[in-house]
Amino acid sequence: MDDKRALKEIKRFKDGKFELISDLVAREVSFTIFINKNRLVSIACLPENLPELALGFLFSEGLVFDFQEIIDCQYIQEELWINFELDIPKNRINSFHQTGEKTSGCGSGLSSSLAGSRLHFPKVCINAENILDSMKEFLKNSELFQQTGGVHRAGLLKDNIIEYSVDDIGRHNAVDKVAGMAINGKISLKDHFLLCSGRISSEIVKKAVRLDIPVIISHSAPTSEAIRLGWKFKVYLIGFARGRRFNIYTGFEENLFEN
Amino acid sequence: MDDKRALKEIKRFKDGKFELISDLVAREVSFTIFINKNRLVSIACLPENLPELALGFLFSEGLVFDFQEIIDCQYIQEELWINFELDIPKNRINSFHQTGEKTSGCGSGLSSSLAGSRLHFPKVCINAENILDSMKEFLKNSELFQQTGGVHRAGLLKDNIIEYSVDDIGRHNAVDKVAGMAINGKISLKDHFLLCSGRISSEIVKKAVRLDIPVIISHSAPTSEAIRLGWKFKVYLIGFARGRRFNIYTGFEENLFEN
Repeated sequence: MDDKRALKEIKRFKDGKFELISDLVAREVSFTIFINKNRLVSIACLPENLPELALGFLFSEGLVFDFQEIIDCQYIQEELWINFELDIPKNRINSFHQTGEKTSGCGSGLSSSLAGSRLHFPKVCINAENILDSMKEFLKNSELFQQTGGVHRAGLLKDNIIEYSVDDIGRHNAVDKVAGMAINGKISLKDHFLLCSGRISSEIVKKAVRLDIPVIISHSAPTSEAIRLGWKFKVYLIGFARGRRFNIYTGFEENLFEN
Repeated sequence: MDDKRALKEIKRFKDGKFELISDLVAREVSFTIFINKNRLVSIACLPENLPELALGFLFSEGLVFDFQEIIDCQYIQEELWINFELDIPKNRINSFHQTGEKTSGCGSGLSSSLAGSRLHFPKVCINAENILDSMKEFLKNSELFQQTGGVHRAGLLKDNIIEYSVDDIGRHNAVDKVAGMAINGKISLKDHFLLCSGRISSEIVKKAVRLDIPVIISHSAPTSEAIRLGWKFKVYLIGFARGRRFNIYTGFEENLFEN
């Protein structure tokens, strides 16, 4: 078995009969992020793309705004921890710990202060049919989901192409990982649309705001607070992208769609 | 609209056409728990059964072990906070804050120390067909899920009857709420089976251990770590209860099932 999945002996009940079989489940580990050698947080996650998870987390939670604030980084894969030497004001870390909220959702989701917000919805252009095709492709490509049923998925779509996609046992972790992949490649997120398999709660919108992502497209539903923040911070929310339909929850007066 | 759902103006794309419609979404609020007037945690949740959520949280996170430790309680519904006057050792609160883990999942899920564990899997008796019927009934009964698609659900099953069930935008919150409902009624959880709509991650198993719940039955998949903890703390895990099948991940050598 690789890192992402584990083979377990289980007993199955099916159509009135029991049988012993082997089955795949998603692996879960506890991964710890240190900042300047002080423990910031431990995250229950799928053991894959962990440095990207940490990098995305730092940006999406408002701890780091610029790559130049990261002086050094030490990642010990076997011990499941990473340490960042950061040159940031101490109050960001204090603020992170003080405003820590338990999230509604899968993974972390702390509500430290949101970075400068937009005055207007950004000019983006979406092809409606392409959204549906992209969502279908995005979900189909997760072998791990097909095998274990126990993961969420996040992706980044640009110019109708899925540039990055990744799995995690948590919704928020998947978003942080895919953001970290782009950030690690020095790719700006302001032209990327975020694809999510899971529900859109307020924390996902906050992450998108801090990451400067203009559009969130989900297979699932948003909450009322996600919609409120989407309007406030000018992030387009598209939900229930399934089959031949989707819902646009924010910014729908804008000229968002290609003819 | 009631407290649980909000009606939103949205734009729908369906079969190649856009239309403006109204649609229901699940409401999300931030609810704060104080202990002895100090802020413990804020939880993003559905505004329903909030005192039960707080009560379940205190027990499932190992902050309170006995009702007698709760001296007094003040709940201000309009301001979305609750304060508990507790007679507990200060190190429990410190331990809660220090070991705080970001969860993989929906709601909170802190890994403070687990209460005394069982030496053996408890003697329980399950009817296999009844599990499947109960799961079906349990999921069908959520009007909010049918309307918004944006909630999880937890329930407590005893003697083949669903005694409590509740919705939340988060998996963990739903478990805390349903536990709080039983605890508030001075009902012991040791003969109840926990029903969950969502995935079983390690935090759900930790909550079940602290709540003394012997069996977790989910519509969805467990993670590897949930299975490890299930074996370690002698909690039966049943997953993928769908249609006419389910998987038993832990304790399946035991004589768990009725003939």
